[in-house]
Amino acid sequence: MEFRLDQAVDVLRRTPAALRELLADLPEPWARGNEGPETFSPLDNVGHLIDGEETDWMARARIILDRGSSVRFEPYDRFRHRTRNAGRTLESLLDEFARLREANLATLRSWRLDDSRLDLPGEHPALGPVTLRQLLAAWVAHDLGHLAQIARVMAKQYTEEVGPWIRFLPVLTDHPKPRS
Amino acid sequence: MEFRLDQAVDVLRRTPAALRELLADLPEPWARGNEGPETFSPLDNVGHLIDGEETDWMARARIILDRGSSVRFEPYDRFRHRTRNAGRTLESLLDEFARLREANLATLRSWRLDDSRLDLPGEHPALGPVTLRQLLAAWVAHDLGHLAQIARVMAKQYTEEVGPWIRFLPVLTDHPKPRS
Repeated sequence: MEFRLDQAVDVLRRTPAALRELLADLPEPWARGNEGPETFSPLDNVGHLIDGEETDWMARARIILDRGSSVRFEPYDRFRHRTRNAGRTLESLLDEFARLREANLATLRSWRLDDSRLDLPGEHPALGPVTLRQLLAAWVAHDLGHLAQIARVMAKQYTEEVGPWIRFLPVLTDHPKPRS
Repeated sequence: MEFRLDQAVDVLRRTPAALRELLADLPEPWARGNEGPETFSPLDNVGHLIDGEETDWMARARIILDRGSSVRFEPYDRFRHRTRNAGRTLESLLDEFARLREANLATLRSWRLDDSRLDLPGEHPALGPVTLRQLLAAWVAHDLGHLAQIARVMAKQYTEEVGPWIRFLPVLTDHPKPRS
């Protein structure tokens, strides 16, 4: 499927509302349950998505569009949210994510990017040369990956409770070493 | 995490609204894109969840609670939705799923199940002896598994478009042979 900016924005705008329906006022054991040490709970996932809004996708798009002397991105801290959000509730994080996402998409739309600008190059500190189009496509896939992760982490809290059904529920067993 | 009926119902009631936010009026390539032959698109996933409401979870719970001469469940047709829903739109399926789920949860709540009834036995045609508690826990995990699957299938439509980012997006590569 080819990247289309309008379709990418259409998916990106859905994530905060979908997460709100799934997570708002979720019982604590589900909100904070994870898949083991160094893995993300649903609450961690939302914190990580907030980090993405503040320090990743749009910050890197700006570096590309500014066309300064260097288009190399700053490294991204995948665990920034742990200290940033200590003591925060899931509801306040869902609110903050929705506000940040809405503002970022308003800015993105205001740029009225055409194909030639979507082809502009950047340099990822680990991945090397990339384009703005690839950055925006990765933003979409990253959202969906964390939605899948949240659903999986929630499902796993019932791994023992489903009994024999575990054989028919691959979501419980497909990630023996989960990557967060 | 121990099964609690109120918490299970709290998650089950969220699924239709979360799916609506994620999928309503989604562009066709995303609604009907899948992971290859014999795998489910987002639309197929919603059809499969509808089948679950009509023929799986509550039908089997009734078999357990009726305590008739046999508590063996009927086998479940995982592809019933393909013929049932030919020509249907994603929106009409989302509406139907929400209606069926709401009615099923109203019935489930009306039963006021206590621990002793949650322990009642049934017999799964493939998995053998199970309890009503395990059936209800599996219903929750099944919902979350299909939500994860929908997000993954949507993400995969951008596998080519993300370019080098594929290395940092395990959702795109963790299921080389997806199980639907």
